[in-house]
Amino acid sequence: MKKIFFIAICLPYTFTMAQQKNNSLIKYINPLIGTERMGHTYPGPTVPFGSVQLSPETDTVPMQVNGEYNKRVYEYCAGYKYEDKTIVGFAHTHFNGTGHADLGDFLVMPTAGKLQLNPGTADNPCSGYRSAFSHSNEVAEANYYKVKLDDHNITAELTTTERVGVHQYTFPKSEEAHIILDMMYNIYNYDGKNVWTYIRVENDHTITGYRQTNGWAKNRKVFFAARFSKPFKNYGYKSYARNETYTGFWRRFDIYNNFPEMAGHEIRAFFDFDTESNEKIVVKFALSPVSTEGAMRNLEKEAPGWNFNKIKNEGQRKWQKELEKITVEMLSEEDKINFYTAVYHAFINPTIYQDVDGKYMGLDQNIHEAKDFNNYTTFSLWDTYRALHPLLTILQPSRANDMIKSMLAHYDQSVHKMLPVWSHYANENWCMTGYHSVSVLSDAVVKGMNTFDAKRALEACVATANNRYYDNIANYKKYGYIPDENSGTSVSTTLEYAYDDWCIAQMAKKIGNTKVYNEFIKRSESYKNVFDTSIGFMRPKSANGRFRQQFDPLQTHGEGFIEGNSWNFSFFVPHAPSELIKLMGGNNKFVEKLDQLFTMHLDDKYFANTEDISREGLIGNYNHGNEPAHHVAYLYNFTNQPWKTQEKVRMIIKSQYNNGPDGLGGNDDCGQMSAWYLFSAFGFYPVAPGSDQYALGSPLIKSAHIKLEHGKSLKIIAHNQSEQNVYVAKVLLNGKKLQTPFIKHADLANGGRLEYFMQEKPGKN
Amino acid sequence: MKKIFFIAICLPYTFTMAQQKNNSLIKYINPLIGTERMGHTYPGPTVPFGSVQLSPETDTVPMQVNGEYNKRVYEYCAGYKYEDKTIVGFAHTHFNGTGHADLGDFLVMPTAGKLQLNPGTADNPCSGYRSAFSHSNEVAEANYYKVKLDDHNITAELTTTERVGVHQYTFPKSEEAHIILDMMYNIYNYDGKNVWTYIRVENDHTITGYRQTNGWAKNRKVFFAARFSKPFKNYGYKSYARNETYTGFWRRFDIYNNFPEMAGHEIRAFFDFDTESNEKIVVKFALSPVSTEGAMRNLEKEAPGWNFNKIKNEGQRKWQKELEKITVEMLSEEDKINFYTAVYHAFINPTIYQDVDGKYMGLDQNIHEAKDFNNYTTFSLWDTYRALHPLLTILQPSRANDMIKSMLAHYDQSVHKMLPVWSHYANENWCMTGYHSVSVLSDAVVKGMNTFDAKRALEACVATANNRYYDNIANYKKYGYIPDENSGTSVSTTLEYAYDDWCIAQMAKKIGNTKVYNEFIKRSESYKNVFDTSIGFMRPKSANGRFRQQFDPLQTHGEGFIEGNSWNFSFFVPHAPSELIKLMGGNNKFVEKLDQLFTMHLDDKYFANTEDISREGLIGNYNHGNEPAHHVAYLYNFTNQPWKTQEKVRMIIKSQYNNGPDGLGGNDDCGQMSAWYLFSAFGFYPVAPGSDQYALGSPLIKSAHIKLEHGKSLKIIAHNQSEQNVYVAKVLLNGKKLQTPFIKHADLANGGRLEYFMQEKPGKN
Repeated sequence: MKKIFFIAICLPYTFTMAQQKNNSLIKYINPLIGTERMGHTYPGPTVPFGSVQLSPETDTVPMQVNGEYNKRVYEYCAGYKYEDKTIVGFAHTHFNGTGHADLGDFLVMPTAGKLQLNPGTADNPCSGYRSAFSHSNEVAEANYYKVKLDDHNITAELTTTERVGVHQYTFPKSEEAHIILDMMYNIYNYDGKNVWTYIRVENDHTITGYRQTNGWAKNRKVFFAARFSKPFKNYGYKSYARNETYTGFWRRFDIYNNFPEMAGHEIRAFFDFDTESNEKIVVKFALSPVSTEGAMRNLEKEAPGWNFNKIKNEGQRKWQKELEKITVEMLSEEDKINFYTAVYHAFINPTIYQDVDGKYMGLDQNIHEAKDFNNYTTFSLWDTYRALHPLLTILQPSRANDMIKSMLAHYDQSVHKMLPVWSHYANENWCMTGYHSVSVLSDAVVKGMNTFDAKRALEACVATANNRYYDNIANYKKYGYIPDENSGTSVSTTLEYAYDDWCIAQMAKKIGNTKVYNEFIKRSESYKNVFDTSIGFMRPKSANGRFRQQFDPLQTHGEGFIEGNSWNFSFFVPHAPSELIKLMGGNNKFVEKLDQLFTMHLDDKYFANTEDISREGLIGNYNHGNEPAHHVAYLYNFTNQPWKTQEKVRMIIKSQYNNGPDGLGGNDDCGQMSAWYLFSAFGFYPVAPGSDQYALGSPLIKSAHIKLEHGKSLKIIAHNQSEQNVYVAKVLLNGKKLQTPFIKHADLANGGRLEYFMQEKPGKN
Repeated sequence: MKKIFFIAICLPYTFTMAQQKNNSLIKYINPLIGTERMGHTYPGPTVPFGSVQLSPETDTVPMQVNGEYNKRVYEYCAGYKYEDKTIVGFAHTHFNGTGHADLGDFLVMPTAGKLQLNPGTADNPCSGYRSAFSHSNEVAEANYYKVKLDDHNITAELTTTERVGVHQYTFPKSEEAHIILDMMYNIYNYDGKNVWTYIRVENDHTITGYRQTNGWAKNRKVFFAARFSKPFKNYGYKSYARNETYTGFWRRFDIYNNFPEMAGHEIRAFFDFDTESNEKIVVKFALSPVSTEGAMRNLEKEAPGWNFNKIKNEGQRKWQKELEKITVEMLSEEDKINFYTAVYHAFINPTIYQDVDGKYMGLDQNIHEAKDFNNYTTFSLWDTYRALHPLLTILQPSRANDMIKSMLAHYDQSVHKMLPVWSHYANENWCMTGYHSVSVLSDAVVKGMNTFDAKRALEACVATANNRYYDNIANYKKYGYIPDENSGTSVSTTLEYAYDDWCIAQMAKKIGNTKVYNEFIKRSESYKNVFDTSIGFMRPKSANGRFRQQFDPLQTHGEGFIEGNSWNFSFFVPHAPSELIKLMGGNNKFVEKLDQLFTMHLDDKYFANTEDISREGLIGNYNHGNEPAHHVAYLYNFTNQPWKTQEKVRMIIKSQYNNGPDGLGGNDDCGQMSAWYLFSAFGFYPVAPGSDQYALGSPLIKSAHIKLEHGKSLKIIAHNQSEQNVYVAKVLLNGKKLQTPFIKHADLANGGRLEYFMQEKPGKN
């Protein structure tokens, strides 16, 4: 049974009538959606695309136990698990919905009573600084989080600006009130992840410092500057490093107490206060990718005063402003929560990655200044090229261009001469496969929305696609596919390269570079080389041209695919569905196979040991909980049965999205899962970014009014919309009936009116 | 027996006649002086006050063995021991003459044959990349070092610019020629000292990177950019970290071979070449305190071409230019070598610490720009306030001002609100005692040579001297001395504080701040509180006012003094010798005691276990090998027997200085030992920097012509000079006979003529 949350009843008492009016949409944001099971979202506050994501951590789970990978760590990608009963503190950086993780920088925890510098255990929270909490004392809104820390009788409230996390702690009367700053806490923590940490006590209420970690990002540095609203009476730290930090002549001091420099591999600091009953202490904690000086500048510019509610309200207004770009009518309040929370989740990553003065850390570890753009980081491209970036192209074209300029800056700074694969915080983490940046760049150019130099972008794409040592590009170019013996993901990577190459070809075509077009359009046909017509599936092939003998197209592991089986991946030719249909034996066989995908039973054994595929994310063998098949429901449009797309899309939405903590069927993956929802709710989807075409589906909205950035509006109306009327009878674009189940980007880009006429039965004509 | 070196015979064949003329003085520089025994100098090239000190390392000695401090490490403060038979490579940073150490950044070693990434052992150099060498194949000049690496049949030549180390390796014919870059090598190395290292292969002949270490400097970062004159055919690295560095998705690459990013806690990289017989490969290795970008800028600005000899000659011209400021006639060529090598050693530290664009890393770990000065680092102030800084005040007033401005910038960036104690590379290492920066600042102000704001400087001095937690300042202020029970160096630190406080008072007086003057002149009398008239020695005293009962004034350890016994330290009242004479019972008793200091026998047991005091550095119980008594020989001037100063000074010079590798009786201590020599050779010495007075001694020179920075000249002549004529009959200043054995700074600052008339017998009048 799904937990149905009506966030409206949780609205905090501080909301005035005026605010309610101004914030009429943000009440539909429920940050708890996806915090249970596999969503990997976090409940804490952030502003749109904000650098700071301040959120509670509910356990300290190491990445390794006795030298072995600890599967539990996967559950804590966002730090918070709705199922947990304790909170260890509030950290300032989180990814939204990833399936591998990092971050969790600068864990802050208020406590009262005897100082405890260890976090303690979930079973016995009193054994450390952590605290039990209950969801009945928890409020999560856009840019606001509140929780009662039961063990300390402290109420914690959190909010943010773009670069500053703001904590407001309401203490009991105590002569032993503490604020702990745990520099050791890490998401995906392991022995040696902390490279170095440093804290400087600038005065009795100001601290600065930094942390360098060696994790998913190999060389990641985050700087901070923080101010406390009340001077601390006492402070200090303890080192937990296995290798004692060199102290040398520092031994003449008591460096652990009231000594204003603290440094080491593994340290936890504390700041002590006397508090009156209900006394509030505010901590403003600014981040910078550049320096403590930059962090201090960010702090002073963005959060000058001590008015917590003012900062909270400013951030909420930012969300309201973003949401107001899309006014929707839907069938239920629950749908509206799903819808606006999907917008919320789509507008979190990538995040701004520069100081208020435009300075940022580049991939080359030098400090750069973003002069004609805002620099972004956290590019989960294997996921987000599919729907998130195309969505931002429509809803956030300025930011979308800045994101691409950030990717081009990454390219300029890359010693590999490559666009990002999966990058965060001035690091390439090389996660997943393909070179899907090229899809994002191509999509922007093909849709004519680029303010960046398309020629330079094409150069970057070509260089990326020709890197001599990246993940079998050399073999792929040599054989026309990646031989089975050279890669564990030879088939899926071949398929992804083929699609990416098609994107490059489209971009080349658009800017008239025939040479590049010819080269890459040829490469884009490589998918044919791994399709085994004898079984009708994509299948691993050796360098000698023979397909692998023992092969199970239902199996995800060890069969040549990444995070998906051949059944799902065999449909991954988004750029040439008609060719794929031919390969698979023509229209009827193709439809049959698609039908089967959604209806067949997948035995537990096929996903029992995988992190990214779960029963919840599956419909038959169709895996919506992970990305490779996200376009698949829309492939019926390329057959004679487009009404099946409509049916499947509405089914997927019902099955995979709800407004409770378990409301996402899989990782949100930096907003990709939410972006899929939003496109589908609007009634169309970009099957192959890099083309200017969207495939029509079945809208979920009753109406949507989208204010485009240039001022014009796009109005989408679903006449006769209901739970039952999932089929589309006809579609009018600006009053004119569409003849195919496709529209072009240009049809929407200048606004207009898109009308769906819904009915209960398939529109089989 | 001393090894007497005549450097002239070692002059390399490349010297042309023209160069010989231009470089007529640098031939007297013998960088090998002090490389044996306790001098702790290094033989490799550097330019005056240069950022790069490129020098051979002759062993890899860890700071700890089985968790215990390894005494041998002390011998390797400068990386090179003349006694050693093998070279492990050439590193880019070294201190000149310190008694504790750090640095040794970026060890480069050329090898031929099978690649070996371990250094191997001194006993069996073939077990690693190190090589045997012999002094007969070694040349050390100003800014030039050359050695034959026997095991590899490679000749290595080294030279530098201010910020670039330049290596020229002459290889044999080989298909297995390598250049190793060992990022693990550290001076004073221990497990965990390397915090992080990073190398980026920008192209086939360019690399960049950085290292962060946690050693004497807790948070030290050095960045580099290097170019090879020949592209490498192959490259890679190996990780030696106990904790494997997180590799994550990097596992899809062979990150250890030809992958252009290398990172980890402990790594060694290699670059492979094919070489012809006698093929030269040049490596230009630039450093930066700021960034790899800054290092690259330094490289391009300072070392654009590939002409090794040109760079070498430019650096030698810089030395020649510095030496030409002082033209001396001396009694022997040996003395001239001692003299100009002392100038050389006095002009190494402090070092320039900023990029060519003025940017540097500040103590606050932020990047700053030096706008109206050049920023310097490496302030070994416990040593250098005594004679080195006063010497630079005369010979290098612009640089001396910039050094003080650098100290004031340090103060501005200090979270402790303190001037440097012992600082290097954007770090305070807190080494030794006192707050002797105030002496340097005061001396400049009192002598009227300051171009910095004296009021701001006084503020900094007062803040420093009042730090609430630094080394018993609080107790010192409370009791008028540091109680025995609060410090292991209660007496010496009290004495040093008293002197430093007197310096602050002098500065306050000079700028008319009576309040500060009164406060600090009172504090400056604190030395009286630790003088025990009953025994005539400085002695530890408890908070209750009682002197320690069990007490041995000959013992260095555990008796309340640092690096000196009470016998030496009891004379440490440089600011009030006349008062000290009174305390010690008047003129005769004082003279008797001084005589005794120089003549008594100090049993081995008193220094068997100390690093900083050795038999070589002692004359009787007078310890010239370390600093506390450096002014003591000049104290006779305050008695009725100043001729004993003359006698002792000449005796000390004879005993403590020679022109061989064992030519320094103790650590050069960043030039302090050399500066003592130079002042004494000129015939005067600053007993109490912070006063404008010099005590006269017995000059060693026959004549010295000093070109002062403002254009005027100071001519010093010792008439009738000889080995025997060590006594001064009379002294004429600009033709006028001096009535006391003192002169004032103002007497010299505008140039003029100082004439000593030497004789064989004491001038007892």
